[in-house]
Amino acid sequence: MNRPHRPDPGASSASTYPVGFDLKSYLKAKSEKVNNALRAQLDAVAVPGRLLEAMRHSLLAGGKRLRPVLCLAAAESAGKADEVAMPAACALEMIHTYSLIHDDLPAMDDDDLRRGIPTCHRAFDEATAILAGDGLLTGAFEILAGSALHEPEKRNEWVQVIHLVSRAAGAAGMIEGQMQDMQAEGTPLSVDALATLHQLKTGAVIEAAVHCGALLGGAGNRQLNDLRRYARRIGLAFQVVDDILNVEGDPVRMGKSVGTDREKRKSTYPEVLGVSASRNFAQQLVGEALKAIQDFDNRSDPLRAIAVYIVRRNR
Amino acid sequence: MNRPHRPDPGASSASTYPVGFDLKSYLKAKSEKVNNALRAQLDAVAVPGRLLEAMRHSLLAGGKRLRPVLCLAAAESAGKADEVAMPAACALEMIHTYSLIHDDLPAMDDDDLRRGIPTCHRAFDEATAILAGDGLLTGAFEILAGSALHEPEKRNEWVQVIHLVSRAAGAAGMIEGQMQDMQAEGTPLSVDALATLHQLKTGAVIEAAVHCGALLGGAGNRQLNDLRRYARRIGLAFQVVDDILNVEGDPVRMGKSVGTDREKRKSTYPEVLGVSASRNFAQQLVGEALKAIQDFDNRSDPLRAIAVYIVRRNR
Repeated sequence: MNRPHRPDPGASSASTYPVGFDLKSYLKAKSEKVNNALRAQLDAVAVPGRLLEAMRHSLLAGGKRLRPVLCLAAAESAGKADEVAMPAACALEMIHTYSLIHDDLPAMDDDDLRRGIPTCHRAFDEATAILAGDGLLTGAFEILAGSALHEPEKRNEWVQVIHLVSRAAGAAGMIEGQMQDMQAEGTPLSVDALATLHQLKTGAVIEAAVHCGALLGGAGNRQLNDLRRYARRIGLAFQVVDDILNVEGDPVRMGKSVGTDREKRKSTYPEVLGVSASRNFAQQLVGEALKAIQDFDNRSDPLRAIAVYIVRRNR
Repeated sequence: MNRPHRPDPGASSASTYPVGFDLKSYLKAKSEKVNNALRAQLDAVAVPGRLLEAMRHSLLAGGKRLRPVLCLAAAESAGKADEVAMPAACALEMIHTYSLIHDDLPAMDDDDLRRGIPTCHRAFDEATAILAGDGLLTGAFEILAGSALHEPEKRNEWVQVIHLVSRAAGAAGMIEGQMQDMQAEGTPLSVDALATLHQLKTGAVIEAAVHCGALLGGAGNRQLNDLRRYARRIGLAFQVVDDILNVEGDPVRMGKSVGTDREKRKSTYPEVLGVSASRNFAQQLVGEALKAIQDFDNRSDPLRAIAVYIVRRNR
């Protein structure tokens, strides 16, 4: 794993893929670390009882842990151990999980299954699910603020992290994206409108995950910009593949319902572009993501492997 | 208004009340300032559209503005102009409003009227109300983080503010209080259990409001502790009076439904202690609050007048 990365300005995605890199082991190891940290953080921000049980039900149900892993991988890419970014990684996963809990509510997407188990309001009740989501969102900021408080030498970076996470997850980011998604049901969208919607709904937080990790890892401005470009491309690629899997995926492997986009008459990439062109588009985005970080050394191999995984995944 | 405050260890609430102080004008002036600041902050954290409209509907519907006014008054008490604490005051009111929006939802208290106008889910719809609450909560942290980012000379104080607000509003504070409140429906509580419940549900954020204002106003440790003791007493007094008004209040003047506690078989102070003893208890708490800040000079007169107002109010 000490293979030096050879920059190649005209590199195709194939030539920049880190061939010897074992992503499966990497994801397994990082997910376990993240899950352990999440368990500890959860106990620090909540008190024993039904609320904590509901938060735990949804937060510790597994999931791909894409956002925290990206955050840790970005810190490593900038040259630091993943520990520096772990509180941010946890906060991002808590925010992602809260958004799933609220989106799954009967008043929103009314889903019964998430991450292979009953959604929070099915396992508990609606009121508890609303509060569990609120608790995860607020707890995320408590964790970030706690890091800012207890790491004075990194306080400036943590303040930037709190600001960019709140911005990305807020009413000019993820929440606005969810609102526009609901409003667009039944209205055909153009490819550009669809990209804008997804940049808000999922792209902003994925970009924030990489941005936070890079900041905490000590990346310079040039590196930050490259990593953010990488993140924007894989964020959109992720969503394009999500749309494809919603048409073609296996609900058992996915751990959630499929075919729901069509039922709700949501505009999707397969619908607007067709399945085959959607696949090509996702592939192109991943190529651009790999190109954005082509000058980085082999400490960015996890980010490269994740980019490629995003289009190859089946859940 | 330059009357020196004479410390009197045995002071009764009557003798420490700032007789010449015009609370009505003070509250009017502060509320207007808060409302103007809230309008500007809201436009900074959200983009035009239905989500922003829903956030605005609930946030700018009036209300007593108790938390922001306490925050500003605490900053003044510590010797600073209220401007230093305005972003914290706004964040606290946004958090209070988000909690009302979510508590009013059909799955929770199912209320139709709030601050004299339809609740958010009545004026818009449930999904929009859930998202509007989420947006206000996330926006509150964006505002606090923005202050931390843009005021480097006060960054340490802002980081403390973010931490204590998230803690007070989170799953070991306000949200846990709401959870326990729902779980306790139909179960008679002792006076102590009732006090614990209210300390979580409303007390923690009221204490945070005073604490934040005092911190940003530059209060020392001794002064901070006194102000927090003041805040805990008036926080509980406020809730005792709320319970009394839920039995005896006028729904038109209150701007919300009354008699709802009995309908939901919630334990309340009038039920546990009787109305008359509840009034005495609130009066005693206010006396203790005034005593906690008896050594402070006349810059604390607004806090004194607010304490007395809390038991005399009729909405």
